[in-house]
Amino acid sequence: MAEPELELVSRRIRSFPDFPIPGVNFRDISPLLKDPESFRTCIRLLAGHLKTTHGSKIDYIAGLDSRGFLFGPPLAQELGLGCVLIRKRGKLPGPTASTSYALEYGKAELEIQKDALEPGQKVVVVDDLLATGGTMCAACELLGQLGAEVLECVTLVELTSLRGREKLGPVPFFSLLQYE
Amino acid sequence: MAEPELELVSRRIRSFPDFPIPGVNFRDISPLLKDPESFRTCIRLLAGHLKTTHGSKIDYIAGLDSRGFLFGPPLAQELGLGCVLIRKRGKLPGPTASTSYALEYGKAELEIQKDALEPGQKVVVVDDLLATGGTMCAACELLGQLGAEVLECVTLVELTSLRGREKLGPVPFFSLLQYE
Repeated sequence: MAEPELELVSRRIRSFPDFPIPGVNFRDISPLLKDPESFRTCIRLLAGHLKTTHGSKIDYIAGLDSRGFLFGPPLAQELGLGCVLIRKRGKLPGPTASTSYALEYGKAELEIQKDALEPGQKVVVVDDLLATGGTMCAACELLGQLGAEVLECVTLVELTSLRGREKLGPVPFFSLLQYE
Repeated sequence: MAEPELELVSRRIRSFPDFPIPGVNFRDISPLLKDPESFRTCIRLLAGHLKTTHGSKIDYIAGLDSRGFLFGPPLAQELGLGCVLIRKRGKLPGPTASTSYALEYGKAELEIQKDALEPGQKVVVVDDLLATGGTMCAACELLGQLGAEVLECVTLVELTSLRGREKLGPVPFFSLLQYE
């Protein structure tokens, strides 16, 4: 991957130690969103990886509530695909599938509309950051409930010391930027 | 505005009566997100309106947590601008400005990072839907705290019978689709 392009993205991520709780070093993507060239580069790098890896096999991008919503639609548009939403509990109307999971700090439940995907459809899940992998793992479980196939999970940032990648088991994972 | 283009957007909005509480007719944008052509058209129509109305005067798009996050970055990209985030309480690191407000169903607090905008910068706020206008009004108040100027608020859907537009007072408001 082109270093100058990655550098354009990484210099727009800043750190806030001890947020939201002591011991957590929060990676803030606000500067990236604020700079159109860097954000475009980020989306193009993610899309480029997915095109190279999966060609035209992907049916949908799944965006995770709520920072994954910032990346899901632009990434889907860049690939000419639609985006399906995986939301926190109680936000989606109609029949839903749901699963609960442990967060980096707390507990939560994810939902997807049952008609979001058909069995056998191929999905890439996107979020801003992979920490312990709890949310991403729950998203994969949820997509599995609908019979969808998760081709890959991708994030902008990966916190490698939390080993979330291992939690995803056999599901391929890709991140643009890695931090301890 | 071109009717066939609007039709492409409106046919991807569906209704769920009595969600999340009895008496509320929930407008579900999931089908729009899922169809790349319709979503692209939606973003182009919103961007076209903003270009016509404000030319190159807009400095930033402000996206509202969390469904506004689906529209903020794509709209900002279409206009060659950056996107700033207005979030629910407790989600943003660093010094923030905050304001509390009443929701269509419930109560909430919004925050923005104090360094998100400089005094005098011109902003357009985007969300998926305008109901009573409580959230949008709070967003304007918050941007005012930073000294930013809200040029306009825009949403995909407007529920006209709830008269949210009036609540915004002198701030211009635009919606692509209006429902009772």
